[in-house]
Amino acid sequence: MPKQKRIAIIGAGPSGLALLRAFQSARDEGADIPEIVCFEKQKDWGGMWNYTWRTGMDENGEPVHGSMYRYLWSNGPKECLEFADYTFDEHFKKTISSYPPREVLWDYIQGRVKKANIRQYIRFNTAVKDVAFDKTTGQFTVTAQDYSAGRRTSGTFDHVIVATGHFSTPNAPSYPGFDLFPGRILHAHDFRDAAEFKGKDVLLIGSSYSAEDIGSQCYKYGAKSVTTSYRSRPMGYDWPKGWEEKPCLTRVDGKTAHFSDGTRRDVDAIILCTGYKHHFPFLPDELRLKTSNRLWPLNLYEGVVFTPNPRLFYLGMQDLWYSFNMFDAQAWLTRDIIMDRIALPSRADMEAANDQWREKEVAIRTDEQAFKYQGDYIKGLIAQTDYPELDVDNINRIFLQWKKDKKADIMGYRDKCYRSVVTGTLAARHHVPWIKAFDDSLEAYLRLPSARSQAARV
Amino acid sequence: MPKQKRIAIIGAGPSGLALLRAFQSARDEGADIPEIVCFEKQKDWGGMWNYTWRTGMDENGEPVHGSMYRYLWSNGPKECLEFADYTFDEHFKKTISSYPPREVLWDYIQGRVKKANIRQYIRFNTAVKDVAFDKTTGQFTVTAQDYSAGRRTSGTFDHVIVATGHFSTPNAPSYPGFDLFPGRILHAHDFRDAAEFKGKDVLLIGSSYSAEDIGSQCYKYGAKSVTTSYRSRPMGYDWPKGWEEKPCLTRVDGKTAHFSDGTRRDVDAIILCTGYKHHFPFLPDELRLKTSNRLWPLNLYEGVVFTPNPRLFYLGMQDLWYSFNMFDAQAWLTRDIIMDRIALPSRADMEAANDQWREKEVAIRTDEQAFKYQGDYIKGLIAQTDYPELDVDNINRIFLQWKKDKKADIMGYRDKCYRSVVTGTLAARHHVPWIKAFDDSLEAYLRLPSARSQAARV
Repeated sequence: MPKQKRIAIIGAGPSGLALLRAFQSARDEGADIPEIVCFEKQKDWGGMWNYTWRTGMDENGEPVHGSMYRYLWSNGPKECLEFADYTFDEHFKKTISSYPPREVLWDYIQGRVKKANIRQYIRFNTAVKDVAFDKTTGQFTVTAQDYSAGRRTSGTFDHVIVATGHFSTPNAPSYPGFDLFPGRILHAHDFRDAAEFKGKDVLLIGSSYSAEDIGSQCYKYGAKSVTTSYRSRPMGYDWPKGWEEKPCLTRVDGKTAHFSDGTRRDVDAIILCTGYKHHFPFLPDELRLKTSNRLWPLNLYEGVVFTPNPRLFYLGMQDLWYSFNMFDAQAWLTRDIIMDRIALPSRADMEAANDQWREKEVAIRTDEQAFKYQGDYIKGLIAQTDYPELDVDNINRIFLQWKKDKKADIMGYRDKCYRSVVTGTLAARHHVPWIKAFDDSLEAYLRLPSARSQAARV
Repeated sequence: MPKQKRIAIIGAGPSGLALLRAFQSARDEGADIPEIVCFEKQKDWGGMWNYTWRTGMDENGEPVHGSMYRYLWSNGPKECLEFADYTFDEHFKKTISSYPPREVLWDYIQGRVKKANIRQYIRFNTAVKDVAFDKTTGQFTVTAQDYSAGRRTSGTFDHVIVATGHFSTPNAPSYPGFDLFPGRILHAHDFRDAAEFKGKDVLLIGSSYSAEDIGSQCYKYGAKSVTTSYRSRPMGYDWPKGWEEKPCLTRVDGKTAHFSDGTRRDVDAIILCTGYKHHFPFLPDELRLKTSNRLWPLNLYEGVVFTPNPRLFYLGMQDLWYSFNMFDAQAWLTRDIIMDRIALPSRADMEAANDQWREKEVAIRTDEQAFKYQGDYIKGLIAQTDYPELDVDNINRIFLQWKKDKKADIMGYRDKCYRSVVTGTLAARHHVPWIKAFDDSLEAYLRLPSARSQAARV
């Protein structure tokens, strides 16, 4: 009998949990699964979805993982991220809206893994500090700081799966005058509560999802004005009164922001919505994925196998149109490779496949091409495993409708309803329009008896 | 001829620079000094005194070292921290006041090390990731990430000196209701600009230097009210109108803070002035100093030699009454131990000495006893090396006067003048009282021609 494999999963967020669920699913069908240790820096699972009021360093002196903020509602239809093996209908036992708030999505993610009974695999409050690969033995040594026990531990593993996400380490450029700006300058990573900016003139640097959504939050919760500064092109939505798009910030002088078109504006706070870095401080150079945020990072065969060392895997490292269900598709494939159900081709063939994907990625010109590209990738993964069927073409249609709905009404698109491709259920309209839904709690959303009143929360 | 030693200094702040200066001083007198590599995470030297607008993570994804904020003026007389070998008179060529602002002190620190020509020893933008000790060879392997070169480097050393400070990793307790507080919650580590809190009701948790000084900043720059919450006893100064001391925070409910005496207050922001942790994530358990912030951390013979492994040193790890000149005294002793000018006693004798110091420390009841204790410690260090004479008794008298001046006028004490124990110079009154000195730039302070006007900065 071959020796049981040992695997280390780093991170118990959506990607890491998807992999735990994939293994549990195989175990339930009678397969021998590897011995699994999942290392999680935080005290609870859910990664980004596990909200914390903390910014900067956490209670252990570790960088805070979360970039989640209060009042966040999904910015894409939940029908695009639904698990094929655990539906919203199954979890909530009722029909909910298409854009639920953070706590509701967190509850949904947890529902599946509670049902799967996988919590025992996770070492919480334990931060991985180092991973080393021994060419002779073909094994990894993973060193971690266990903050509950107050000691450093080490163990050897046949495979390591990096599932730490890529929205935790800010990319924060500096601009002339920042050191003398008389107000708060923060990266989106540290944004927590829009109420802080009530009555303020807020400047956001960036023109992607963070700028769009944090700006919308600030607007919704009473900012005096919202200015967003783009580098290449404006977001171009039909912004409400008090919201203006400006080209590049060139400098700040006191509280006056200067832009490349010669205009200026006095602002009270500056929020850098300038993206994140793929950052793996616990990995040595030769094991570290080096990529910007894009649809096809190189060196990842099938988007998950690290070709320079194919015993190492990365989950969820792509620019995300798809999310939870893509992590699932990646997790099921990763599981099957680890369990020797799927054989890897030669390194040259893996690299050739990567190059083909990259070539197609580089030719992408529109958003529609982008999410269809990612959909094709997911179809290819699902075809290789027993992950339940997923109607990717239909999800692509929802993405397209979502883009149109946003374009039509940036402050109203979250009131739209879409149909689940898994269950066929048409989402219910939420009982309050998003722009007036100040209470984002699970209780208020589901109209449970313990709901805090909106008045008490704003 | 014995092989030249190699030493690694971690950190180029006041402590690390003091050690570089100590070695340079020996070299200038003809001694053979070890080969030195000083690792500095930041792009420039000065540690805490090198101000950055950044909070949380820096541009390399490393925790921001600095807890420095704008408009910080020394909160103790400069006469208590003056270098014995490089005076304020020598540096500024004119008489300055007793409580200079941050930029002025940074300039002073830099003046000495520029003169000493030691910058070539420092590897900037390089963060130490791991230190390992090999019992067989008696050597340390130091692994560091060089962010300029984009690679990890490793080297072996006979000695490692940890000079990374202990005011960088926040101790941040949580309170019920923090996750729903509608405003900013931050630790003092992330405080940068008091102007952010103009017109706001600010709550500070803590009753030590951070609470006292950040509260004073907020008051000076226009906070609507300042509330400080103490755990054991109030600071008890004669606070200005709008400043109130409260006992323990018990919870927050929305924006209402509740205190243990049953009173409450609505606040807009909460600043945790709850101290820092001695935190050395790059050290394994057996090399890591574990201590709270106190006058005599155990396991440090003469306050610097790590007794479980006396080839390892720690500088500046004590609770600080004395600062720059204490780091000097420690640096000169460390240098002489490394250069075999001073022999270490047995481990048992070192531990016995530690126990004696600890026993005296535990008996301390008053602030006066505390700074005299630290003064005695410094006298003991200086007596063993060629560091210039320092009139510690006289500095103790200045500390005592400072305490009285603060008690008499907490918003006015920085206008007092003291006499240097090194040069005998009586400080000059600053040209603006501290409470009205809104421009803290070097130029404004020294009345240089390029001074920005106060109006332009506030």
